[in-house]
Amino acid sequence: MIPDRPLDLGGERFEVVYQLACPADEVEVRARDICVEQTIEFPESLVSDPHILDGIVGQIRSIEPLDRGRFEVVIAYPVEAAGSELTQFINLLFGNVSLKPGVRLVGFDLSDTLAALYPGPRFGRTGLRRLLDVPDGPLLCTAIKPMGLGPRALADLAYRLALGGMHLIKDDHGLTDQGFCRFEERVSLCAEAVVRANRETGRTCLYLANVTAPVGEIERRARFAKDAEVGGLLFCPGLAGFDAMRSLAADEGLCLPILSHPAFQGSFCLHPDTGLSHGVLFGQLNRLAGADATIFPTWGGRFSFTQDECLDLIDGTVRPMGTARPIFPVPAGGMRLDRVSQMCAFYGSDVSLLIGGDLQAHGGDLVASCRRFVELARHSFESGAMRSM
Amino acid sequence: MIPDRPLDLGGERFEVVYQLACPADEVEVRARDICVEQTIEFPESLVSDPHILDGIVGQIRSIEPLDRGRFEVVIAYPVEAAGSELTQFINLLFGNVSLKPGVRLVGFDLSDTLAALYPGPRFGRTGLRRLLDVPDGPLLCTAIKPMGLGPRALADLAYRLALGGMHLIKDDHGLTDQGFCRFEERVSLCAEAVVRANRETGRTCLYLANVTAPVGEIERRARFAKDAEVGGLLFCPGLAGFDAMRSLAADEGLCLPILSHPAFQGSFCLHPDTGLSHGVLFGQLNRLAGADATIFPTWGGRFSFTQDECLDLIDGTVRPMGTARPIFPVPAGGMRLDRVSQMCAFYGSDVSLLIGGDLQAHGGDLVASCRRFVELARHSFESGAMRSM
Repeated sequence: MIPDRPLDLGGERFEVVYQLACPADEVEVRARDICVEQTIEFPESLVSDPHILDGIVGQIRSIEPLDRGRFEVVIAYPVEAAGSELTQFINLLFGNVSLKPGVRLVGFDLSDTLAALYPGPRFGRTGLRRLLDVPDGPLLCTAIKPMGLGPRALADLAYRLALGGMHLIKDDHGLTDQGFCRFEERVSLCAEAVVRANRETGRTCLYLANVTAPVGEIERRARFAKDAEVGGLLFCPGLAGFDAMRSLAADEGLCLPILSHPAFQGSFCLHPDTGLSHGVLFGQLNRLAGADATIFPTWGGRFSFTQDECLDLIDGTVRPMGTARPIFPVPAGGMRLDRVSQMCAFYGSDVSLLIGGDLQAHGGDLVASCRRFVELARHSFESGAMRSM
Repeated sequence: MIPDRPLDLGGERFEVVYQLACPADEVEVRARDICVEQTIEFPESLVSDPHILDGIVGQIRSIEPLDRGRFEVVIAYPVEAAGSELTQFINLLFGNVSLKPGVRLVGFDLSDTLAALYPGPRFGRTGLRRLLDVPDGPLLCTAIKPMGLGPRALADLAYRLALGGMHLIKDDHGLTDQGFCRFEERVSLCAEAVVRANRETGRTCLYLANVTAPVGEIERRARFAKDAEVGGLLFCPGLAGFDAMRSLAADEGLCLPILSHPAFQGSFCLHPDTGLSHGVLFGQLNRLAGADATIFPTWGGRFSFTQDECLDLIDGTVRPMGTARPIFPVPAGGMRLDRVSQMCAFYGSDVSLLIGGDLQAHGGDLVASCRRFVELARHSFESGAMRSM
């Protein structure tokens, strides 16, 4: 047998932070187990090549006790193990250890090589503000719904929502290409409606088409949407993959902002001792995969995130990570007009508030409800009652 | 505004089974909430079209109490809401409710329309046995590893594992296209090594190339692997998406068996009151997306699944679901030769046992270790000490 070239690694590593829930006398063994499980996945005693043990296996950088029998463990992996692919990078972060109880991924950094591979969002907070010509204050976001409406009814909704002053109007994430509301007809009509409203108002409102779809269809629909003059894309990485979103963000021919939706991702974060932290899942991974804004169910709505979890999520949208830009958090999930000032006070001004159904709950005049939303947010911002994040 | 065509639905629905953990006096409200959340995601009181309320919203079929304050709820959704796309079908099953605590998806059926859309695995248990010419008894599976070895060393391992009588030899799921072990070189050499071993033994061993990869690369690598005469594909749907696996399974130009790996999916099932049951996640969804065999961490190994969870998983590999074939369960995760008889007794004969590192733990003669594995499994099968599943 001709031997392989000797394993030649550059020594560059990146750090990943896990929380472990275990007895103190087990933490070092468990940390060491992660180092092996995520790389060679093989008994170290059987590895004959010292370059593999020294170069491939994860290395424990620190172990610090936290409260409630938990520990923060920092592990450094070689960049070469991550290759140049987002799928393998995520595998290295949390592939097999996702199957072990008591391990939670709470943060990671990007070393220089990884930062170059994953530039992150094309627009981010600053770029989205520039597109919209909204230099400060909360962005206002809404959705066209309910499922069951046809393309014309949805386009009419989009038109009135844009007239009323919304900045971002997204497809409901359950609208894909159903027989009663085909993608192409819906996207053409809604994009046209919002362009028309923008001409009338002189403002910029972006309509975001949902391109969560089967393999092959994603890119085709995104190009169709681009040609139809949409303002951006909605995508569910939990359903169609983080890498598919990265591919959309990197596409120079599209050059569209992307709003990420959390469908099918809840199981990753609901239990505090396993899965991914809110900051990693909705913040860091979305930025890594190029989202410019991240929808999540805020505390106090139809869902269950706590205030602390929401704050961790916000931190994930801004914490240093290579050269990736900060992105907009988009609290949602049962938001109402009567909670706008409370949400503004909590989330600060670098936020995009998403109200869906409640805009349609105040009588028939949707444009007037939107204007009320605009006023409430503007008032909260100008009164200075907003936290600076 | 020109009105849309009236909403015209055929009345065909499919049933989805959830377990809810909640007080008895809340279960009906929570079940109703799922019916709405997963479809119109909009206050029912604001829906003016009765066709949407009657035709789109989920319908509660039954609510039955279970033990420990839990309930089994059956909800029927209209097939039209699922469209013709796996991404939206999964969204309808568990998109937004994944974000709510106390809801677990434990089963679903396929109505006629869905069964036609999702034929499931191309090979399944019967087809894989036919490919291998192994009409009965457990299949034996192993992996080439550790990460850090080069293509030639891995091909040499594959050759010896095939000589020793393994039926399935998979790339370790962390081997993708790293600089120290490029995909094309590895796959060419390993495929050639296994073909050569097959010529010598007169048996059929399948080498399964890992094609978990970024968008675009998946199909390209699968075609390269096909041309290199691999025996099948390894895929991680948790990293690259269930729909990408479905696309590989449906590809007539490939026509290769697919082994699914659970990387990054553990968080979906670790907590019994949220996420997906083991039977749904590793059984039903993998079959829906075309896997012919499903790797999972068995009880008693490096991971934490219980015996009951493993039995539920096995049930998910065979339970009636449209016309989708049963698939092989592949218990793994720290299996050893000294546990083969125990695993055979528990899992029965329609199983593929996966032993990785331990085959290399018994001195230098890998071929002899494989033969020992073959003998142990054959003995367990022929002695009749196997459960019939």
